[in-house]
This record gives sequence, structure tokens and C-alpha cells, in this order.
Amino acid sequence: MQTLGKHTHRKFWGWGNTDFALNKTENTLVGSSIKLLSPEVGTPVSIPKTDEYTLPKPRVSPPEKLKPLLSCTPYDRLLHAYGQSCADIIRMLMRDVPNPPDYVAFPKTKQDVVSLLEWMERDNIAAIPFGGGTSVCGGVEPDVGMSYNGVVSIDLQYLDKVIEIDPISRAAHFEGGIFGPDLETALRPHGLTLRHFPQSFGFSTLGGWIATRAGGHFATQYTHIDDLVESISMVTPRGDLISRRLPGSGAGISADRMMLGSEGTLGIITDSWVRLQTRPIYRTSVSVKFSGILQAARAVRAISQSGLFPSNCRVLDPIEAIQNGAGDGQHALLLLGFESADHPLDAWMSRALELAHDYGGICDFKDIKQSTAHTGNTEINRDAATGAWRNSFIRMPYYRDEYLRHGVLFDTFETAITWDKFENFHTEVTKAVNKAIIEVTGKPGYFSCRFTHIYPDGPAPYYTFGAYGSAADDLASALSKWQYIKIAANEAVVAFGGTATHHHAIGRDHRSGYEQQTLPLFRDALRGIKKTLDPAGILNPGVLFDPTDRTVGITGVLKN
Amino acid sequence: MQTLGKHTHRKFWGWGNTDFALNKTENTLVGSSIKLLSPEVGTPVSIPKTDEYTLPKPRVSPPEKLKPLLSCTPYDRLLHAYGQSCADIIRMLMRDVPNPPDYVAFPKTKQDVVSLLEWMERDNIAAIPFGGGTSVCGGVEPDVGMSYNGVVSIDLQYLDKVIEIDPISRAAHFEGGIFGPDLETALRPHGLTLRHFPQSFGFSTLGGWIATRAGGHFATQYTHIDDLVESISMVTPRGDLISRRLPGSGAGISADRMMLGSEGTLGIITDSWVRLQTRPIYRTSVSVKFSGILQAARAVRAISQSGLFPSNCRVLDPIEAIQNGAGDGQHALLLLGFESADHPLDAWMSRALELAHDYGGICDFKDIKQSTAHTGNTEINRDAATGAWRNSFIRMPYYRDEYLRHGVLFDTFETAITWDKFENFHTEVTKAVNKAIIEVTGKPGYFSCRFTHIYPDGPAPYYTFGAYGSAADDLASALSKWQYIKIAANEAVVAFGGTATHHHAIGRDHRSGYEQQTLPLFRDALRGIKKTLDPAGILNPGVLFDPTDRTVGITGVLKN
Repeated sequence: MQTLGKHTHRKFWGWGNTDFALNKTENTLVGSSIKLLSPEVGTPVSIPKTDEYTLPKPRVSPPEKLKPLLSCTPYDRLLHAYGQSCADIIRMLMRDVPNPPDYVAFPKTKQDVVSLLEWMERDNIAAIPFGGGTSVCGGVEPDVGMSYNGVVSIDLQYLDKVIEIDPISRAAHFEGGIFGPDLETALRPHGLTLRHFPQSFGFSTLGGWIATRAGGHFATQYTHIDDLVESISMVTPRGDLISRRLPGSGAGISADRMMLGSEGTLGIITDSWVRLQTRPIYRTSVSVKFSGILQAARAVRAISQSGLFPSNCRVLDPIEAIQNGAGDGQHALLLLGFESADHPLDAWMSRALELAHDYGGICDFKDIKQSTAHTGNTEINRDAATGAWRNSFIRMPYYRDEYLRHGVLFDTFETAITWDKFENFHTEVTKAVNKAIIEVTGKPGYFSCRFTHIYPDGPAPYYTFGAYGSAADDLASALSKWQYIKIAANEAVVAFGGTATHHHAIGRDHRSGYEQQTLPLFRDALRGIKKTLDPAGILNPGVLFDPTDRTVGITGVLKN
Repeated sequence: MQTLGKHTHRKFWGWGNTDFALNKTENTLVGSSIKLLSPEVGTPVSIPKTDEYTLPKPRVSPPEKLKPLLSCTPYDRLLHAYGQSCADIIRMLMRDVPNPPDYVAFPKTKQDVVSLLEWMERDNIAAIPFGGGTSVCGGVEPDVGMSYNGVVSIDLQYLDKVIEIDPISRAAHFEGGIFGPDLETALRPHGLTLRHFPQSFGFSTLGGWIATRAGGHFATQYTHIDDLVESISMVTPRGDLISRRLPGSGAGISADRMMLGSEGTLGIITDSWVRLQTRPIYRTSVSVKFSGILQAARAVRAISQSGLFPSNCRVLDPIEAIQNGAGDGQHALLLLGFESADHPLDAWMSRALELAHDYGGICDFKDIKQSTAHTGNTEINRDAATGAWRNSFIRMPYYRDEYLRHGVLFDTFETAITWDKFENFHTEVTKAVNKAIIEVTGKPGYFSCRFTHIYPDGPAPYYTFGAYGSAADDLASALSKWQYIKIAANEAVVAFGGTATHHHAIGRDHRSGYEQQTLPLFRDALRGIKKTLDPAGILNPGVLFDPTDRTVGITGVLKN
């Protein structure tokens, strides 16, 4: 398990670190869910080892000067062979990796990135930009078809420097390969934070967040990386794209917005200036009960349109609530919170609670946790439900590895929809996915909903489903069931008015929905950009759109 | 003065309506400014009449079926010959209109737009999309060089329907040619507002705002049209671009952000869903004095980073303050306001005032105007300084017509800059523009600054300059002086770290700065989009970037 990378503890076949273990409570929880969904609880698939995979020999010969940057150890090739979707982990558990990258490149400098792209363009080698590799939609898969001579994943983890911190404008300049925790560690001594906490925070990078338009943990305001970006530098096969660092601009079409969401198809994000915030010292949070998710949604609509902008406004349906150790199973729960580095939040919280109450919310006011100004532990003074929720949220992807080892499917999909359509949308999507689960597995599965973000004009609902896939020795069958359910979800989400993704990116797995919600002419326009920046079409083929004729049909596990 | 258009009261040679007249106070104010800047106050240039212009004959022959949509009356051709920049008005006053559009088209439907573009592409005719025509940067000028057979302005004023209002999501679907007042009139009965009030509000259109990334009147939050757009429909020569109506999305590169700021170079915006707000019923406002603009800026920086998000946070330097009838000429003024449809704002205002006070702001607390919930006149309960400021802000462009008739230059430019650079930037830009004024006119002029918008990472400063141009019978000399000062301002703004424009668009007049702040490769990427959507390059040639070889060098009054 040698690697040229620094993160030698990363699991190559699933989420996070090798030394992670479920605690006793979690083992019980996961075990009981498996029992609920499986006809019998068999022996799980064994933890994969690198020597259990038959990998094809690298097909390309790197130039001498680039060899020190390139690895072809089984560990590195496996770690970069898939992302972190259900299909990715299932295929890993099946020891099924027919298309690993020929090499994995670890550039140390921006010039290394330029040299790598020069070589790869010249030798017709596909390039897969790789940040943390937490894509759940086939965004880093090196399966590029037969028209390339080979494929190299470019892992940006050494481009992780803190270049400059500007406390006056509250902004900082980082290299794109920096991981979430390192970025926050650098900012903490300055009393600053990027305050962008996607679920993948520990295992994903700034460049990856920008490339995929990542959504942060907070419900409103500055949470999406889109709004936190002040400027971006990207290396393309035709040169640099660099936007000017500005607080705002109306100078033509935004260059930042052309790079945001480009998902590695236009270039490699080498560095970025981002907007920071002062670390909050005032916090208040509370949980409010509602008779159901639709009731909670109406209250949340009122709050979303009030101009109060809570930092947390997370609706959990009754199933989510209990699953997360934060409810009684009878009520939907609204986790409502405000935080500030500047002022106490009593006025904000009391008005938000009035609104929740107007729509039938039940809250024991004595439960409200208020924190007053202090500079201590920023984790204290959360209310119990919010704390429980956060903890299980971070550890959830580890549970999924365990489910999948038992042949139990466990996956999420997410979207955004305007309020006028939400109730019908939610009913129809619930119906469609439950129907698909029954059709393909023969019995009901698990299905739940929460809101991750809210806007004045609509929520971002986030769905989780669980279903029996197969016995542990028949994971091919589990994979095909996952494909069936995933396609049904993609279709329903877009058919009833949502977006193919709100913050998980398109990659390959969401292309079916994406192609319903966009017009071919728009994808032609993207192709127009691509032809300028990457005329040979070497960057991340198959992801987002078909940039050249030769990539038509490379659409990943859902269509192959 | 016949026209196929509905707005027969529009002045063809300057700002706004023909029936507008300065009141007595304004006449005195304008008169004294002229006296200050001019060696003598002569007879102003006479108000232009349409028959004083020698217009070239139309060079193209429209197809029979399109003739009912096309006008070539002198009034229509003159009204569409320029925008509303200083150079535009000076040239009108000089009776100098060598390049009017051959025709002005008034499409009644989206299909009319399609048919017009089909004809124009086939016959090699340049198309100038025209909303309200209030561009101050050469954005609607039909001077397209010799490689086109002709040029037609497409005036969208008949695409002004209210298609749908969705009070649940607080959104509405309008056609792109609707003017500000009509849009607000349609929303008022629903208790809703777009709350987007650029200075040109009365004379500009939704489609124009989107094409140019217009900035609204408010200092923070939902004020830019960029953030108010839920979806856009655009007709291009290659078909429709339509984005899906969504509250948020992370599905690849944003289609909306590709159309926002396209300045008529990619297509014509026929309709759009926009995000609305409930009409505010709580308001509080106050003015705070500071010893100077840099002191006020430090307070504003603290407020911008507080998370309070005032609706108004307008800094006026001492000169602006007195010029606007809202100061004593000794102090910079901060006009601070909050408004809400949902809650009283005492907590917000008192904390903002604490911050202002911390940085030396002086405010007589008894002056604070608070309004409590009511549904009456939304104009009441402004404090006197804010009210005076608003009034003169709206009427300012009319004053400019009078200055220019006297050969006195009066113009504005605006930008945005991060806080760390602001103080140096402001000093250097002030120096550079004052130097240019002295160099070209031989004596000091008028120069002032305000902030129009604030962000946590920087302000959007807005500068006004006045200078003696020429005697009224020698406006060519005034024009060349304006060009000299404008180029100096463009250069300084970008050289010291700002953006070529924060909310006035690039057009032709800001291209010199724009080309400094963007890389050629980015403009190549824009060209890649253009080649897909408008391969013949008929749309708004010379604006924003050079899309094809034949438009190189068409950069308007600053370079011709």
C-alpha cells in the first residue's frame, strides 16, 4: 500500500480512513437497519485488499522528466479508479475494476500541472482531475472509452499551500488541492473561517468544491462555494484562466461562473481567493416539532421569506429524525439555528419561532440554547437534537460502506424546487422511488427526506433510500437494482420540476436528468467553450456533457 | 416625430422624457455649478430637433412580411442611434449621427424576434438588441463598421407582458421588454415587488437589466439582477436558450450566468422568471456623520462584515453630500437604513449604529426614523437626508443634459474593490482623474465619491466628475476632453485593482479596462460560445469582446 500521496490512510474501496470503526451504538443501529431490509443477515463481503484486484498494465510511457510525479502502484490506481457513489463501492467490493487510471500523477507545482497536460494532450491521454475523490456521481471515473491511448488521474493534494490571508477584506488565497481541515486550521489563528462544511469536508478539497459547485452545511446565505469564491485560477491545455479578485463585478459574463461547475472538463483549478467570515461567537438553536414534513415545509417557507436568514433551518421528516437520533418518529423536526460573530440573536430567533408557531410548530421555549459572547469552544451550546444530527451526518457515509458490504443499498439524492411545486413534487418523487424499489426488490424499502438548504423561492430537499440489494456474494444483482432505482430517481426529480442536482454535481450519473433539464443548444455552447480551452478533448471525458464526438456514450455506470 | 414605438415622449437626444423640466431650485443648482466650472456662462446648445440631422438612407430592403415591424422615421433612428453616455449626448448636441440604424424593428412576439434574426443573418445585417437604451457605455451603438450590409436596432418594448405571478414562491414571469414601472405596477396588487431600482428604473427594461447585470438601489443582499433571476429565455440565431426555473442548482456551469452580462452579444432575452419580495412595511433610517470618507469607509467595512445586511449603507463624501442637499460640506455622510416586510428592525439598527459609533460616526439618536407596521405609503418615514438623496439621484441624469448643453462635462464611473486595497485605490484614482482633468482643461474640476453597494470583502465606489469642456459652439473639443478623462479613469480603476465596471456594463467604452482585467484566453472562450450561438456574428458587434475578425477595432467613441 505504497503511494506517492500523503494521505496513506485513505480507504481505496470506500469512505474515509482505514482506521475508522463504528462504535457500539452505531453497530447496533446499522445492524438493525440491515435486519429490517435483508431477508437474512449473512456474512458481509470481506474488506478489500489491493492484491485482490487484477489491474491491466499501464498502456502509456511517461516522459522521463515526469516520471517522479507518477505512480502506478495498485493502491494509487485503485484509490483513483472510482469516486464514492454506491455503484463505485459496490464495484470495489466486487473486485471489479476494469478501467483504473494507467498512472496517477501528483503534481507539486502549477508548472507540473502544465507539463502533465502538455504531455497528455500530445500523447492523446485522457486527464481526470482529482481533488478528494468524494464524487458521488461518477465525476472522477477514468473509464474513457477506446479513443484515448490511456488515462491519468491528476491528484492535486500537493497543491495545498496557504498563499495569503487578508484579514482586512476577510479573504484568503489557497492552492486548490488543500483539504477542508487544513484550510480551516490555517484560518483559525486569525479568528477566521471559510465556514464551508460539506459532508465530505474532511476528505475533499477547495478545488473540488469549486469544480462541482459544492454546497456547505448552512441553510441560507454564504454557504455555497459559488458565493464564497472571490477569484479562481485554472490551468487549461491552452493556458491559464485567471479571474480578478473582486468583491463584486458586472463586467460581462462572469469568468468565475464559467469555471464553477465545470467539473474538470475545462481545466484544473490550481488556486483561488475565497471570502471568509469571522468565527461565530453567538449561537442559538432549537428544535421545533411539526405533525409532518409538509407542515414543517410551510413554516420553513415563511422563515425563508422573512429575511431572517437562519444558519440552520433543517427539516427532518419523521423517519430522518428518528434515524438521526433526534426525534420521536411521530413528528417532523425543524432544526433552527442562528449564529453570528457580531451580535446576540434573540430578536432573530424569537421572530423565527413566532413564524414556526404560526404554522403549527411546537417548541418548548425553555429548550432554546442561547450562547452569549465568548471565544471558547465553538461546538458548545448546540441543542441536543442539532448536535446529534451533526454527528450522525458526518459519520453517515461510513455506515453506507457497512450496508453495502451486506448487500443492502443505501443512497441519497438531492435537488431544489420552487415552493409552488414542492408539495406535488415531494409526493410524486416519493411515490416514484418507492415504486421503483418495490418493482426491483419485491418489497418496500427505506425512504426519507430532509431539507439541506432553503431559499426564499424554494427548498433543497435531500432524499435517502435504502433497499435490499442482494446477498453479499451476488453484488452484481445489487448493482443492477441500484441502477434501476437511481434512474427512476433521476427521472422523477427532473420530470416533476427539480434540478438534476443541487450540490452533488452532474458527473456521469446525473447526465440523464441534466439532459432533460437543459437544451441541446446550451450544451453546444459549453462545447464551444471546451473547444477553445481543451480542443483535444482530454479533460474528464464523459462528465457533464459530450465535448467531442468521441466521448458520446461515455456516460458511466448508469448507461454502460 | 412619429414612431412605431409606444414611448413617444422619450427624448431622442438625452435623458428621459421631453416634458421634464428642472424646478427653480434645480435650475439654481445647475446654474451655479456651470458658473463654477465655465469661464463664462454662454447660451446653451439649442434643444435638438429631428429635422436638424442628415441621416444616410437605409441601406437594406426588408422582406415584405417584416415591414410592419420596421420603422425608419428620423425620430426612431435617432432615438436608437446612441445610448445615454456623455459622448452620446454630446454627439447628439453636435447633430453628429453618422451611423444611425438603417431600421428600428419593433417585434410584437418572440416569433417576430426569431424572424428578424433569420432575415438579418441571411442578409448580413448587424442586430442591436435595445431595451430602454439607457446604456452609458456604448452598449447600443449601431456603428458596426463596413463588413455588414446594414444594421437594425431591435427594440423590445412590445414584449412587455406579465405572463404569470407565483405568490407562493414569490416569483413572476415577465417578458423581457417590460419597463421598471410597469413591472412594479403589475406586482403591487399582490403585495410584491422585484425591489430592483437602478437609477434608470423608469427608462430601462428587465431584459436590459439582465443583459447588463444591472445593480439595484439597495446596498446589500438581493439587489443585483443576477441574484433575482430564477430563469431566462433567450432567442439566439441558432435557437432558444432556456434555463429551468429553480431556487438554486449545482447542475454544471450555470446557464443563467452565461446569459447574464452577455450584453446582447449572444441573443435577445425574451422573458425571465424573477424572484420577488414582499413589500416592506417596517423601515428605519438614519444619517451618520464622519470626518471624511476614509473614516466612513472603515465603519462601513465593519457593518458590511457584521451580517446585519442594511438595505441602505450609502457613503457620501463631503462634496457628494452637499451636492445632494444632504450634508454640511464638512462631513462625509453615511445613509444607513433597514427595511423588512416581516419584523421591526430595532435590533438591527442599534447594532449597526454601535458599529458606526465605534469608528467615529456621529449620529443624533433622536433623528432615527422608525416606522412600525403599516400598509400605507411606502415612501414615508425616510429620514430627510435619505429622502433628499433619493430625489436628486433620480433627477441627476436630467441635470447632466443641461451641463452638456453648456459645454460642461459631467459624468460618473463606478467599480468595486476589496477593502485591503480601497484606501490606496481611492487616493490613486482621485489623483489620476483630477490630474487628467487639469491636463486637458487647464484647471481643476469637480470630483466626488459615494458607495453604492457594499460587500463583506469590499465596497463599490461610484465617482462623479465635472470639468469645463468647451464653449457651446465647440462641442467637438468637449468630446475630446471627455475622451481623455474617461480613458484616464478606465486605466486608473483597473490599474489599482478595481473592476472596469461594477454595474454599468462593459459595452464599448469600458473595453480598454476590461481587456486589462481579463486574459485573452477567457475572451477566446466567450468567442467559443458566440461561434455556437451566433456563428455569423451579427449580434451587437463591437460590444464586450471581438467575436469575429471583422469586428476587431469596432470599439466605439473612445477608440474610433
